[in-house]
Amino acid sequence: MQINERVDSLRKEMEKEGLAAWIINGTDPHQSEYVSPRWHSRRWISGFTGSAGTVVITKDKALIWVDSRYFVQCAAQIRGTVFEMRKIDGPEASSPLDILIQCSKAGGKVGISAETLMISAKRRYESKGIRICAMDDLLNRIWLDRPAMADLPVEKMDDDLCGKTAQQKIDEIRQMGHSNSEDYHLVSSLDDIAWILNLRGQDIDDTPVFLAHLLIGPNSVKLFTPKTRFVDVEPDCYEVLPYEAIIDELSRLSSVTVRLNPERINMKLKNALDKAENVKVSEGREYSTDLKAKKNETELEGMRISHILDGVALVNFLAMVKSDTYDFTELSIAKALSDERELEEDYLGPSFNTIAGFGAHGAVVHYSATEETDIPISGNGLLVLDSGGQYTCGTTDITRTLLFGKATREQKRDYTLVLKGHLALSSQVFPKGTTGHQLDALAHQFLWQNGMDYFHGTGHGVGFRLAVHEGPQRISSKPGTGEPVALEPGMVISDEPGLYKEGKHGIRIENLVAVTEAMKTEFGQFYTFEVLTCCPYERDLIVKSMLTREEIRMVNEYHMWVREMLIDMVREEAKDYLIKATEPL
Amino acid sequence: MQINERVDSLRKEMEKEGLAAWIINGTDPHQSEYVSPRWHSRRWISGFTGSAGTVVITKDKALIWVDSRYFVQCAAQIRGTVFEMRKIDGPEASSPLDILIQCSKAGGKVGISAETLMISAKRRYESKGIRICAMDDLLNRIWLDRPAMADLPVEKMDDDLCGKTAQQKIDEIRQMGHSNSEDYHLVSSLDDIAWILNLRGQDIDDTPVFLAHLLIGPNSVKLFTPKTRFVDVEPDCYEVLPYEAIIDELSRLSSVTVRLNPERINMKLKNALDKAENVKVSEGREYSTDLKAKKNETELEGMRISHILDGVALVNFLAMVKSDTYDFTELSIAKALSDERELEEDYLGPSFNTIAGFGAHGAVVHYSATEETDIPISGNGLLVLDSGGQYTCGTTDITRTLLFGKATREQKRDYTLVLKGHLALSSQVFPKGTTGHQLDALAHQFLWQNGMDYFHGTGHGVGFRLAVHEGPQRISSKPGTGEPVALEPGMVISDEPGLYKEGKHGIRIENLVAVTEAMKTEFGQFYTFEVLTCCPYERDLIVKSMLTREEIRMVNEYHMWVREMLIDMVREEAKDYLIKATEPL
Repeated sequence: MQINERVDSLRKEMEKEGLAAWIINGTDPHQSEYVSPRWHSRRWISGFTGSAGTVVITKDKALIWVDSRYFVQCAAQIRGTVFEMRKIDGPEASSPLDILIQCSKAGGKVGISAETLMISAKRRYESKGIRICAMDDLLNRIWLDRPAMADLPVEKMDDDLCGKTAQQKIDEIRQMGHSNSEDYHLVSSLDDIAWILNLRGQDIDDTPVFLAHLLIGPNSVKLFTPKTRFVDVEPDCYEVLPYEAIIDELSRLSSVTVRLNPERINMKLKNALDKAENVKVSEGREYSTDLKAKKNETELEGMRISHILDGVALVNFLAMVKSDTYDFTELSIAKALSDERELEEDYLGPSFNTIAGFGAHGAVVHYSATEETDIPISGNGLLVLDSGGQYTCGTTDITRTLLFGKATREQKRDYTLVLKGHLALSSQVFPKGTTGHQLDALAHQFLWQNGMDYFHGTGHGVGFRLAVHEGPQRISSKPGTGEPVALEPGMVISDEPGLYKEGKHGIRIENLVAVTEAMKTEFGQFYTFEVLTCCPYERDLIVKSMLTREEIRMVNEYHMWVREMLIDMVREEAKDYLIKATEPL
Repeated sequence: MQINERVDSLRKEMEKEGLAAWIINGTDPHQSEYVSPRWHSRRWISGFTGSAGTVVITKDKALIWVDSRYFVQCAAQIRGTVFEMRKIDGPEASSPLDILIQCSKAGGKVGISAETLMISAKRRYESKGIRICAMDDLLNRIWLDRPAMADLPVEKMDDDLCGKTAQQKIDEIRQMGHSNSEDYHLVSSLDDIAWILNLRGQDIDDTPVFLAHLLIGPNSVKLFTPKTRFVDVEPDCYEVLPYEAIIDELSRLSSVTVRLNPERINMKLKNALDKAENVKVSEGREYSTDLKAKKNETELEGMRISHILDGVALVNFLAMVKSDTYDFTELSIAKALSDERELEEDYLGPSFNTIAGFGAHGAVVHYSATEETDIPISGNGLLVLDSGGQYTCGTTDITRTLLFGKATREQKRDYTLVLKGHLALSSQVFPKGTTGHQLDALAHQFLWQNGMDYFHGTGHGVGFRLAVHEGPQRISSKPGTGEPVALEPGMVISDEPGLYKEGKHGIRIENLVAVTEAMKTEFGQFYTFEVLTCCPYERDLIVKSMLTREEIRMVNEYHMWVREMLIDMVREEAKDYLIKATEPL
């Protein structure tokens, strides 16, 4: 049994190092949400292929903690191995911290790869009394065919598409650092690096980033990444050095202040910095995170175009699947949508793995159809279809809930309540300084009024041809940690309330919107949202009598806009569908 | 010049103590919002009679920082003295911290009365590098006729009115402390002490508390307050000791853990505790703050009755002032309302100083009419009337905006927008765990939509025949410091959006509401609000066409309830008014 042998080998290495436990958190040295194959370490050790989970190996236990999305999948994938599953949420919830605290109390040391332990994560472990040892990854000694670090070619985005050159962005960052008396800015966050340098990569599926560290100094910009990436691209305002050279570089700094984000800089880098002479650390979010969140007019225009192109593909797709001439399953309908997007010249690939959940599957929030779970889309039911694309000048993310067959009264009522919240949020005018947390109740209000709720966030930021989840802004019923983040012009964010009735149906309606100026009055500056997503709602699921005149006007205006934008771009066969789908209520 | 002499005398005492600066923050040893005459120290030293402000005396400066409410009043009151006014908000804002930091950097010590310096305030000063010295109040040496501490009689509230005996409350507090391994609980917050012991006092205007400290131990309950207060009351489950005896008591504790709230325990007490042997401090909010915020069914019933009695007085008053047969000014109309309340046997006095602002005065949020500013209520205009009463079994706080003469279209529109927010908030159903901060946007949404806003909080907690401002819950666009506080059943809170147009008019509509259970579903437990305040809105200011059917239904139902509750209780002459004021829209 391969898995068990791997655990055994790891235990031998743990013993050599005198460790009582070893943690595998499954992230990469950049705290990426999605990771490249070299960092599929959780999968390698346990066989579990989900996107989140924490492995703890002790002398006599092999444990994996997963969240409720993965209870079934994880249990199946670890069956027959030494692994035992633990739950991090639900009624039987436990935390990996408990066993680590026990180990530490008994005098044991807990090891973890320094590369995948961020500075602030280390502090959190230590604040619980855990004797954490950040060290070289033990897996390197036993995972003999571990994939090498990706070094796929990068692409230079046209500066005209980005609105600013890399040099301009670096100048801005330097200026921001200067006003905080910082000399160097160390950046490991991959989408920040890609954005700053107007480069895009292909190391990670669906997110066009490349593995690298970036060190911006007063007179130099050093990019630590394999030089082999630069095939058709000439480095311009930065020098390219080997990925591992960052360690030497940091340890050779002297008498300077380095800004870094403890949530995104790993302990291997921090240890190198600690060896440097007289280096002061200034902690804070990457300046680029705030700069790239507030998209400039060129980026916004690119996002608008991407959404029109995406709307064309979606309407062509919808006309086809609604024509009753095809038989689809969840997997094949996702494929059909992808094929439709592929027809578009500027389409580069999906921005994440499509969610297509029919009937009761729609109620599983992070449902991902597999060969085993796939079901035909037939009879009466709702399909939750959440997908997005990377385009040459932007990123899209859209959810539509589609009706097949006839809807029940309950389904229509539920859809209309979700729609009302979705409309209330995106049409709200709000004063400068308002956070997404403050606006969240607007999306929930109609569901709450009826004793219903959804438990995922209402909105996440979206990158510019970059990560489909991008901070720092968000719209959530949770207050978030740290300083509240106000919504500011240029920020792109999703508006995606939903409703999930276990065993029955799921509903989610998602548009991307951009924060924009509304008006300036004696009471101050006010903002609102510009809707980017261009695709009809499911007209047959809307109960008109539940809408106010204002809401009816909003739906009709939106549909008129969608029709005008797309009518000359969609296929001839899709025109009838588009006209019918956008008729006034 | 008396004021200048006082400052000179203080400087002499500062010199003796080697102090570079002395702070007078104007609070009392209990961090009370309103203080009794002994603690009118800011007023004594400066002549400024406002309710907030910070005085800093240095060797060559006498400075007073006030907020925008008090710019005009303070400037007038300190004219001709050595005092200079500084502003803590607005375009010319500065902070008292700056001069204190300067003093400290130059090696100077900054003195302050230990009694009026809370533990956490000291930490905040020190975190800025201020060399703060908490000591005996220097004013005691020079303020020769300083009023003695009040020792007015206390009243025992009937346990049946309180729903729980003092003993029961103490048992609950002990249990909560026990689960945190705390032996003693030190309480200085006056409304907490009054609530725990079912006692009410009269030391402070409008807030029926009495100055005391309370120490709840495993086997004893000690109340530190003048015994002379106990005229008709027999102490029951607690022992009464002199106010100053708390110091000895604390310093004699040994090998115990004491819970205290660093925001409400002053440095004089903390210093005493520091002298005690092997005492551990456990910091946290007073348990009673959470217990008293969640009013029990008896307290809620008392609050309901108080609001009906208040409604009777208000409707009698409104019928009179709307009859056009009297001439009022701002001051006389406030007096007329107070006279009306006085007719009620259970009325004990105002719960705060009535705000009656007519016309442009209504736009001054904390306007308080004086002989100098008083204007006749005549011609066309809106009157913002914010008042409240203490009753034997509850506390009220209500704002109505009254129309005199004819309203402009703008006034009606503004009133209706404020009303829509007020209704949206009080009718909202929300899941367990929701904070007031999350709901705040519901009250603001319609104003924001029109580029308008108000800048005060939307809701404050209200005590049970106690403080008209009571935490920890609140409804505000500001997130607040510390752990978010969820709204829980039994909490009473105001719902008071407003709108203030400088030089034109002010609008505020305020009801008190109680959090109550709405429903339990597969999505969890949901709460909503029960409206306590019983008084018609200003019907002639409502633009019906701006309301949804649902909003019209809410106003009509509320008015029907008001009519039913009050019609048999108001004076004969007020019945016609009540019927007209509560006609369906």
